[in-house]
Amino acid sequence: MASPVHLSHGLWTHPLDQRHRVADIGFWRELGSLLEYGTFDELFLADVLGAYDVFDDGLGTAVREGFQIPALDPLIVLGALADATDHLGLVATFSTTYEPPFTFARRLATLDHLSNGRIGWNIVTSYLTNAARNFGLADQIEHDARYEIADEFLEVVYRLLLQSWDDDAITADRDRRVYAEPDAVRYIDHVGSRFRVAGPSLTAPSSQRVPVLFQAGSSLRGLSFAAKHAEVVFVGGSTLDDIRANVDAIRAQAAEFGRDPDTISFLAGAHVVVAETEQAAREKAADYARYRTPREALTQPARTPDLSRYEPTELVEDIIRREDHGYRLLIREWRPGQTVGELVAKAASSRKGIAGDWSIVGDPVQVATRLEQIADYAHLDGFNLSQDVSFESARDFIELAVPELRRRGLARSSYRDGETLRERLSRDRSGARPHPTHPAWQVSSPVR
Amino acid sequence: MASPVHLSHGLWTHPLDQRHRVADIGFWRELGSLLEYGTFDELFLADVLGAYDVFDDGLGTAVREGFQIPALDPLIVLGALADATDHLGLVATFSTTYEPPFTFARRLATLDHLSNGRIGWNIVTSYLTNAARNFGLADQIEHDARYEIADEFLEVVYRLLLQSWDDDAITADRDRRVYAEPDAVRYIDHVGSRFRVAGPSLTAPSSQRVPVLFQAGSSLRGLSFAAKHAEVVFVGGSTLDDIRANVDAIRAQAAEFGRDPDTISFLAGAHVVVAETEQAAREKAADYARYRTPREALTQPARTPDLSRYEPTELVEDIIRREDHGYRLLIREWRPGQTVGELVAKAASSRKGIAGDWSIVGDPVQVATRLEQIADYAHLDGFNLSQDVSFESARDFIELAVPELRRRGLARSSYRDGETLRERLSRDRSGARPHPTHPAWQVSSPVR
Repeated sequence: MASPVHLSHGLWTHPLDQRHRVADIGFWRELGSLLEYGTFDELFLADVLGAYDVFDDGLGTAVREGFQIPALDPLIVLGALADATDHLGLVATFSTTYEPPFTFARRLATLDHLSNGRIGWNIVTSYLTNAARNFGLADQIEHDARYEIADEFLEVVYRLLLQSWDDDAITADRDRRVYAEPDAVRYIDHVGSRFRVAGPSLTAPSSQRVPVLFQAGSSLRGLSFAAKHAEVVFVGGSTLDDIRANVDAIRAQAAEFGRDPDTISFLAGAHVVVAETEQAAREKAADYARYRTPREALTQPARTPDLSRYEPTELVEDIIRREDHGYRLLIREWRPGQTVGELVAKAASSRKGIAGDWSIVGDPVQVATRLEQIADYAHLDGFNLSQDVSFESARDFIELAVPELRRRGLARSSYRDGETLRERLSRDRSGARPHPTHPAWQVSSPVR
Repeated sequence: MASPVHLSHGLWTHPLDQRHRVADIGFWRELGSLLEYGTFDELFLADVLGAYDVFDDGLGTAVREGFQIPALDPLIVLGALADATDHLGLVATFSTTYEPPFTFARRLATLDHLSNGRIGWNIVTSYLTNAARNFGLADQIEHDARYEIADEFLEVVYRLLLQSWDDDAITADRDRRVYAEPDAVRYIDHVGSRFRVAGPSLTAPSSQRVPVLFQAGSSLRGLSFAAKHAEVVFVGGSTLDDIRANVDAIRAQAAEFGRDPDTISFLAGAHVVVAETEQAAREKAADYARYRTPREALTQPARTPDLSRYEPTELVEDIIRREDHGYRLLIREWRPGQTVGELVAKAASSRKGIAGDWSIVGDPVQVATRLEQIADYAHLDGFNLSQDVSFESARDFIELAVPELRRRGLARSSYRDGETLRERLSRDRSGARPHPTHPAWQVSSPVR
């Protein structure tokens, strides 16, 4: 996040950490340069639209901890990074719940133009009560209704970006004095239950047309949404078997939606502490731990529901169906048929951190081996790495782990000029546009 | 505008014009570098939220002419320019009519952070019917109601950016492990007739806190809005006397609102064709004219109402009060007590272009003298220059007119490091924040 803390609670207090500079353009220039030096696929910025004000002291804990507040607008940051970087993919979260699709589609397309096709969008529906209250509502819109809005929001975005302009609309023919061909631009005249949007898009087609669609589907409805729309999934699960089951389930459901399931890529969250030797890595991890805010100090009730409210024998899926917010984290840990009691026991013994990320500490060979094992076993395409200390975490990974991954053929050593983010991330590298089986192409044709 | 054509109809067909590259980051890097080489105060990007589809052939004319479509999102372009430039002020239009104030305030503050206080916002309420139809409405919201929304939208922005965080909220104290002081961040709990916004802002105070407020007040309601809120006014009028009368009227009304009227700056629109000699300038202007789309081919009914619908004896102010859109251009030309017949006669004899801009053609001394005369006579602080041919118009002005203006002490020859846009543009250069008499500080205090 463009915030002092996303999930590395307290680590802004580490003497080497730079995240207090997050509102300074220099922070982003340095981070962009570092990640391009390490030939990273992309930078991903999460986002929220409100403050975590659900602790006993209201806003106090979040403000004191710099916990996701202050937080800059990630789309504006990507605009700056479109200039500051040349190859890095640029991905940000945007919620479909509170803002109109017309202007968002234009922002996406503008970013895709200015970055030459390096943009991705992580689709979320928001879950903080304070966010709802920043947009005129007394409380959250109910969970499944948020996904209904999201479905229609995506339909509008697809139609604006894929249907309202033909590929070859712009001829910029000076002799004929025709900038764009009138027959190649049209209204979408979308009339749905949530949105009415005339179109056309104000933007001409960018190289990806629709930026790469990311999603962290985790609820029942969210998994189905990911299977339908996502091209890259941030996949959850507290064991390798869980993750593999989620990957395979989303692929199977995508096939049911008529999509080629091999066109979806899966990333798991990980944070890595790597040093020249295992001993040095353990010492570094211990040093970081001294600055970390104990998880208990941030009970995050908006994310972690109080499980003691439920009967231990109640099925988790029933609770998820009934409740409307705050279940993202819980749901990540969950399997069909599991009871609340089983979930609590499993969470207590989990080797993973609060974000559901894999924590890996070791020397370069150990780290590379572990990442390779996890990816192979759980059918993953890659990892979404988070920094404990910015930029030391990224620098260590690039200086130590990346060379070992390159030796194994698991990381590139240079960028391909002009490659779009979709070409870089898709398994078949078939093109800059969404795959022909993606539902973006299936929405009802224009009225004109 | 981030579009092939804003108001220089047809000039994208000129062999030297670069505006077909407007979706290319290189266009903005070059433009930013050129304007900083010329020590310009700022770059201003206008905007619309729909297409001009009111011609006989619907979208056809606008699409064929590249007339304000395609058009990139200006806030994203400013994000890229925040990285690509170091000193240039960055100003864009944003409409208060269709998007929620909470996220817009965050985008403004994010831009102000990343640019080190170089941002300005031109406040508009939108006037295209197609824009309304892109946001779920069948037609425009009525003119005065749009200004009521704008007033409350600004109140929310002011409260988010000025009241929800104290100046010294961020201490980032590693020893005390306090990122921001809890007592220095609070809800705004805004409950109005149009918006309900809890706050706090997700952004900490930027150097200007509220970016510089621009407005092109032209209707009765718009002039009053400008007098209340604007720090920089794009002032209209078809003669020097008109402009001067508007400047003086806005200043007088600002004083009635309790503001220090000398804290408002006034800019008139101008486009300048300058060359080494008067003869060369006239030849260049004639060359440009050969590529221009005749004004008659773009009747722009959304901007220029059909005056033949009204009795010539009817007062213009009565029509303006009655009608709800499309009167921006007409109103620029208008004076209290004037009849429709008088307005038509005056418009026919006007020496000004369709945008109400001053057209100045000459050698460097002639151009500088004319600009100085206009500014002196009409009580102006400067000009908003538009390019006929990008970037030739800007380059000629910088190479030829700027040195002459510098000799006269009317243009700077270098930037002051770290100067915010407000310090640069305000008459008293008193500070980075809005003047103490500005209504931004007067809105009701926080509830907490």
